[in-house]
Amino acid sequence: MIRGIGDRTMAYDTSTVIFSPQGDIIQLEYARKAVEKGATALGIRAETFIVLAGIRKESKLIEAPKKIHKIDSHIAATAAGLQADTSALVKRARIFAQIHRLTYDEPIPTATLTNQLGEFLTNYTLVGGLRPFGTSILLGGMSSAPADLFMVDPGGAIFKCKAVAIGQNAEAANNILKQLPKATFSKDDAIKTAKEALQQSIVDPEQETINIAIIDATGIVHIA
Amino acid sequence: MIRGIGDRTMAYDTSTVIFSPQGDIIQLEYARKAVEKGATALGIRAETFIVLAGIRKESKLIEAPKKIHKIDSHIAATAAGLQADTSALVKRARIFAQIHRLTYDEPIPTATLTNQLGEFLTNYTLVGGLRPFGTSILLGGMSSAPADLFMVDPGGAIFKCKAVAIGQNAEAANNILKQLPKATFSKDDAIKTAKEALQQSIVDPEQETINIAIIDATGIVHIA
Amino acid sequence: MIRGIGDRTMAYDTSTVIFSPQGDIIQLEYARKAVEKGATALGIRAETFIVLAGIRKESKLIEAPKKIHKIDSHIAATAAGLQADTSALVKRARIFAQIHRLTYDEPIPTATLTNQLGEFLTNYTLVGGLRPFGTSILLGGMSSAPADLFMVDPGGAIFKCKAVAIGQNAEAANNILKQLPKATFSKDDAIKTAKEALQQSIVDPEQETINIAIIDATGIVHIA
Amino acid sequence: MIRGIGDRTMAYDTSTVIFSPQGDIIQLEYARKAVEKGATALGIRAETFIVLAGIRKESKLIEAPKKIHKIDSHIAATAAGLQADTSALVKRARIFAQIHRLTYDEPIPTATLTNQLGEFLTNYTLVGGLRPFGTSILLGGMSSAPADLFMVDPGGAIFKCKAVAIGQNAEAANNILKQLPKATFSKDDAIKTAKEALQQSIVDPEQETINIAIIDATGIVHIA
Amino acid sequence: MIRGIGDRTMAYDTSTVIFSPQGDIIQLEYARKAVEKGATALGIRAETFIVLAGIRKESKLIEAPKKIHKIDSHIAATAAGLQADTSALVKRARIFAQIHRLTYDEPIPTATLTNQLGEFLTNYTLVGGLRPFGTSILLGGMSSAPADLFMVDPGGAIFKCKAVAIGQNAEAANNILKQLPKATFSKDDAIKTAKEALQQSIVDPEQETINIAIIDATGIVHIA
Amino acid sequence: MIRGIGDRTMAYDTSTVIFSPQGDIIQLEYARKAVEKGATALGIRAETFIVLAGIRKESKLIEAPKKIHKIDSHIAATAAGLQADTSALVKRARIFAQIHRLTYDEPIPTATLTNQLGEFLTNYTLVGGLRPFGTSILLGGMSSAPADLFMVDPGGAIFKCKAVAIGQNAEAANNILKQLPKATFSKDDAIKTAKEALQQSIVDPEQETINIAIIDATGIVHIA
Amino acid sequence: MIRGIGDRTMAYDTSTVIFSPQGDIIQLEYARKAVEKGATALGIRAETFIVLAGIRKESKLIEAPKKIHKIDSHIAATAAGLQADTSALVKRARIFAQIHRLTYDEPIPTATLTNQLGEFLTNYTLVGGLRPFGTSILLGGMSSAPADLFMVDPGGAIFKCKAVAIGQNAEAANNILKQLPKATFSKDDAIKTAKEALQQSIVDPEQETINIAIIDATGIVHIA
Repeated sequence: MIRGIGDRTMAYDTSTVIFSPQGDIIQLEYARKAVEKGATALGIRAETFIVLAGIRKESKLIEAPKKIHKIDSHIAATAAGLQADTSALVKRARIFAQIHRLTYDEPIPTATLTNQLGEFLTNYTLVGGLRPFGTSILLGGMSSAPADLFMVDPGGAIFKCKAVAIGQNAEAANNILKQLPKATFSKDDAIKTAKEALQQSIVDPEQETINIAIIDATGIVHIA
Repeated sequence: MIRGIGDRTMAYDTSTVIFSPQGDIIQLEYARKAVEKGATALGIRAETFIVLAGIRKESKLIEAPKKIHKIDSHIAATAAGLQADTSALVKRARIFAQIHRLTYDEPIPTATLTNQLGEFLTNYTLVGGLRPFGTSILLGGMSSAPADLFMVDPGGAIFKCKAVAIGQNAEAANNILKQLPKATFSKDDAIKTAKEALQQSIVDPEQETINIAIIDATGIVHIA
Repeated sequence: MIRGIGDRTMAYDTSTVIFSPQGDIIQLEYARKAVEKGATALGIRAETFIVLAGIRKESKLIEAPKKIHKIDSHIAATAAGLQADTSALVKRARIFAQIHRLTYDEPIPTATLTNQLGEFLTNYTLVGGLRPFGTSILLGGMSSAPADLFMVDPGGAIFKCKAVAIGQNAEAANNILKQLPKATFSKDDAIKTAKEALQQSIVDPEQETINIAIIDATGIVHIA
Repeated sequence: MIRGIGDRTMAYDTSTVIFSPQGDIIQLEYARKAVEKGATALGIRAETFIVLAGIRKESKLIEAPKKIHKIDSHIAATAAGLQADTSALVKRARIFAQIHRLTYDEPIPTATLTNQLGEFLTNYTLVGGLRPFGTSILLGGMSSAPADLFMVDPGGAIFKCKAVAIGQNAEAANNILKQLPKATFSKDDAIKTAKEALQQSIVDPEQETINIAIIDATGIVHIA
Repeated sequence: MIRGIGDRTMAYDTSTVIFSPQGDIIQLEYARKAVEKGATALGIRAETFIVLAGIRKESKLIEAPKKIHKIDSHIAATAAGLQADTSALVKRARIFAQIHRLTYDEPIPTATLTNQLGEFLTNYTLVGGLRPFGTSILLGGMSSAPADLFMVDPGGAIFKCKAVAIGQNAEAANNILKQLPKATFSKDDAIKTAKEALQQSIVDPEQETINIAIIDATGIVHIA
Repeated sequence: MIRGIGDRTMAYDTSTVIFSPQGDIIQLEYARKAVEKGATALGIRAETFIVLAGIRKESKLIEAPKKIHKIDSHIAATAAGLQADTSALVKRARIFAQIHRLTYDEPIPTATLTNQLGEFLTNYTLVGGLRPFGTSILLGGMSSAPADLFMVDPGGAIFKCKAVAIGQNAEAANNILKQLPKATFSKDDAIKTAKEALQQSIVDPEQETINIAIIDATGIVHIA
Repeated sequence: MIRGIGDRTMAYDTSTVIFSPQGDIIQLEYARKAVEKGATALGIRAETFIVLAGIRKESKLIEAPKKIHKIDSHIAATAAGLQADTSALVKRARIFAQIHRLTYDEPIPTATLTNQLGEFLTNYTLVGGLRPFGTSILLGGMSSAPADLFMVDPGGAIFKCKAVAIGQNAEAANNILKQLPKATFSKDDAIKTAKEALQQSIVDPEQETINIAIIDATGIVHIA
């Protein structure tokens, strides 16, 4: 084969079960590109609550799917990436949560659910004939104080976050999130920051609205 | 390999389990091309009813398959794309609906059925050795007020729609659908708009007729 | 790879589980070529009877396989395409018919059998490592009035037909079939038209004869 | 890939599950080449008997395998093609015959056995990862009057024959077989014609002998 | 692909499930090359005994594996080809022999064992993802008079032999074997001829010795 | 194919089930590259304790995952490489430890756990369609005196270590570890050396901190 | 594909299930290269004892794995090649030995164990999707007099040895082993010869030591 220039040639980027000479799984990086093209989503964690927010794209004819997904009475999720993959992953999360309830008769800890989803996603990168999911998911949960916020990437890597934005313009949104005070802040502050961080990614205000939800000890409340 | 110019070369477009460097699953886009070549179909949702309509191509010798498919007593579907794939998907939808009736002794909610079909279709894009379905389906259901209208694309992505057209000339048809009043409108208005939206895609009126059905609280009525 | 000119290059035509950039499954089109090379077959539907007919090629030494296949006491089939594939499909149709009889204790409706065969054929185009059947089948049945005539293509697409010819010179034969009166016509008229439509495809009358069967409420009668 | 000239290039001829643009399964044609290189075999059918004959190649050190194989007390077979494939197919035929005897307590009709072998061979052309058998088989049976003679090709296609020769020089042998009278003929006539048809394919009479068997109502008799 | 000259190019020789345009399974021919590189082995059959003989290569440090393998009390084998494949095949033969004894309570006929091994080897050429065995085996058995000598090649083809040599210089050895009298001969004559046929293939008499065994009604006797 | 210069061309480096002509499994070397890019981790073994340490990368928004993982009450692990792979491997180690406890009612010996992990990893290099894990793991355990320190590489090779660093700048860190006295040393000495060895790999002290744990007869103590 | 010069081109060397035109399984030869790069190991057999010896590479930080592995109380092994593969093979040998003890209540004969390992390794070369083991193993056992010494290569071929060295500089070591007296020799002589044969392969005496074990009727004794 004659290929283009550069060291990321075709040989190494058409399967998740092939490492490149640099030790990368390039298909995974391409899956992350699908995430970067998804509508922006973010999460903010405080001691006693989590704010999840994301941009919902609507048209005159098509109601956008909700950007924030309830997983269980105490855990919600938002995601950036391929819509169908997100749906499949959210469904999987709900099943994991229900299995836990049925087995242990108590709500699943957010960290446990995150680990299960991470392992589920990693398997799609270890075995041939599958593709990684083209979505990153943020899980906000209030299983016990303090509140938990996790991000799981397409390869199943898990990150415990104070605040994080994913999807289009994630970097700019993250820069705004960094301005949150280290000390405690109110729900209103968090919501205001979330809106600000997402606002700049909105191109067509008529078709793009912001969805916001708060998860605290009383459950999940959809603000917008 | 020496390939043509452009960044969508063969390496990335021959399998659903390969992401392109841009984060796209190109085989899925090709499957959508099969949809765009299918005879136009559309749906219009009101509070208390759904109108499904589509172009049925007939010849002197061959009766076209019906363009609107009954899924259950309260849900109908129309689709654009490969005929055989549509048949297989419609059959699958009927099975999902019957399983729900047998399990819960009540009609399947339209959203539930849509989620099941979406997940079914997504699996065909996650696992190697399969191809995505070359069809998009519109599901109109009256499980409880208000009426539901969903579109599921070949990758299993789900869209909740107010009104939407798919297939040949979908864009032109959608432009007409956008002119529907935001407020309530009568069944006659909806039918008239549906006809108008489809009329422009008809090239040979002798061989192409319009099929229309209304789903409301009383069931499914085939108008034409 | 360096390939010939034209946009249907090898990348997309060696598997049924790959869409071309135009949204086509090219292997399916090649399978249809196998049909077009098969000896001509046709069907004509009236209210109360079906005529199936086809050209049977014989040589001095080899008796041609019969061109019309009994599926059940009320359904017959004729086909164009690869002989071995036709045999396998006919056998499958007989099994479907018997399963129905054993399960429901009544003859299988022609439409039901057609749907089962269509789904069977579609599966060969959805899963990797298989090839589509290189045959199209015409099913004529008298399960209840009116009589049914269906055509199933290699991809499993189903067409309800008034009259249709498949195989070599199908277009010319179809032009003759179109001259059948829209109103009712007698069995003799149908047989005469069938013979006329096939006659023109006969090159060597010594080795090619016409097989004809009529399916009506009394069963299947082989005319020739 | 850069290939030779001509439209049967490598892309389409390395798998039985790929159709060429002309609608052919080229691997099957190559398997038929293996048949054409096999030692000549033939069969002749009369009302009350079948003659099977074939050329057996021997050397001073190696006894050739018998050219005519007993399948059951009333059915024999001869074949042209790869020796190992013939053995496997003959063994399979014997198993089918025994299963029939055990299940129905009567000898298997020749046509039934032929259909089973045809379906068995067709499956090797429908599923990936297998190759077609490189052998054609002639089955002569006396299950009930009249006698049956069938030929099954590597793809599983079945031909009911009056007389037929396969393998090396099959065309020349067939020309002699065509001179058999249409009306009845004696066993001696059939044997004489069989010898004549094979004689011309014998290059080295010391190493090539003719095997002949007659199947009639009394069973199988090996003449030579 | 650009390839070397000649009609046996790469496309057809990398799998046993691909026929070349000439109807050959080229991987099988390559497997036979492995046989031709193996140390010479031969067998001679008389009415009442079989002589098996072969060249055993030894070095000062490594004892060669025995060249003649006992399969059962009345059957022995010798082989040419890959040592590990021969071991696996011999083990398989012993298992077949034991299964027969356990099932029927009598020694396995040599022809039965040969057929089972042939079928076992043929399967490795019919199914993808396997390779043919790189060994040919000679089976000499005294199940009942007269004695049997069979050769099975890597593709599973079976040859009933009077006398045959395989492996290095097989042709020269076979020329000597042809000089055996057609009429009866003594064990001593057979042994002498076997030694003579192998002697010419011995290059280094210090490292290559001849193994000989006689199988007759009394069992297997290792002469050397 | 035309390839770059050098003897590690594409043919041999895209699968773990292919050896290069030099006898290397090149995909395994690429997986080791993923290890070399991971944040540095190290272990130091004394008679009565193990020190594990590693660099934890944090950002203002994302809490890094802990660098030292508890496997059981007497065994801890640290690793360098892909985060998701490390998580999956750590989870597997915990399962192995629990299975041992449940089966034998005693803590798993560190060497036993290491062997099980090594075998688990080796299987991912022996079978096609999988990729090796992109992580190396250090296991420190106090099952019985003396303490154990093992390193397992991506191919499952096991090394019993006195002290070892893996990941970024491993070589420089190892040079510092070599300066540890051969004779006994105190926990404080070990911790000081560990810090010193890691310190030089820290580029951004604000985002990179050092995690340290001591495993001794009393259990696992996280120092930092 | 355009390839380098020489007849061992890529087509034939990327799978164990492909023979080259010369009848070789080239992947197996590459696996043997992995053996040739492994640290030298050797075995010497006398009537009443076996000496196994090998070079163990150590560094200041990493204790080398032991070079001689106990399989059962009467069998030990040493190997050259990939460490992880050796571990897996040694584990397998221990399992075979234990199964034999449990089944027959007696120690496994060395030849039996060797045959089982050979067959195990051969299977990895017969089936696609696996790679051969990159290790050769020497098995020394004292199941009954005389003592046994076997070598099994990556393809599963078995060699009964008087004395043999494998791995780096095997040829030079073998030349020294050849100087052992043909008649009996003492354990001390064998140990001295083993040391001498290995000594020349030692480059860095600080990091490379010699391991020696004697297996005799009393069991396994590690000398060094």
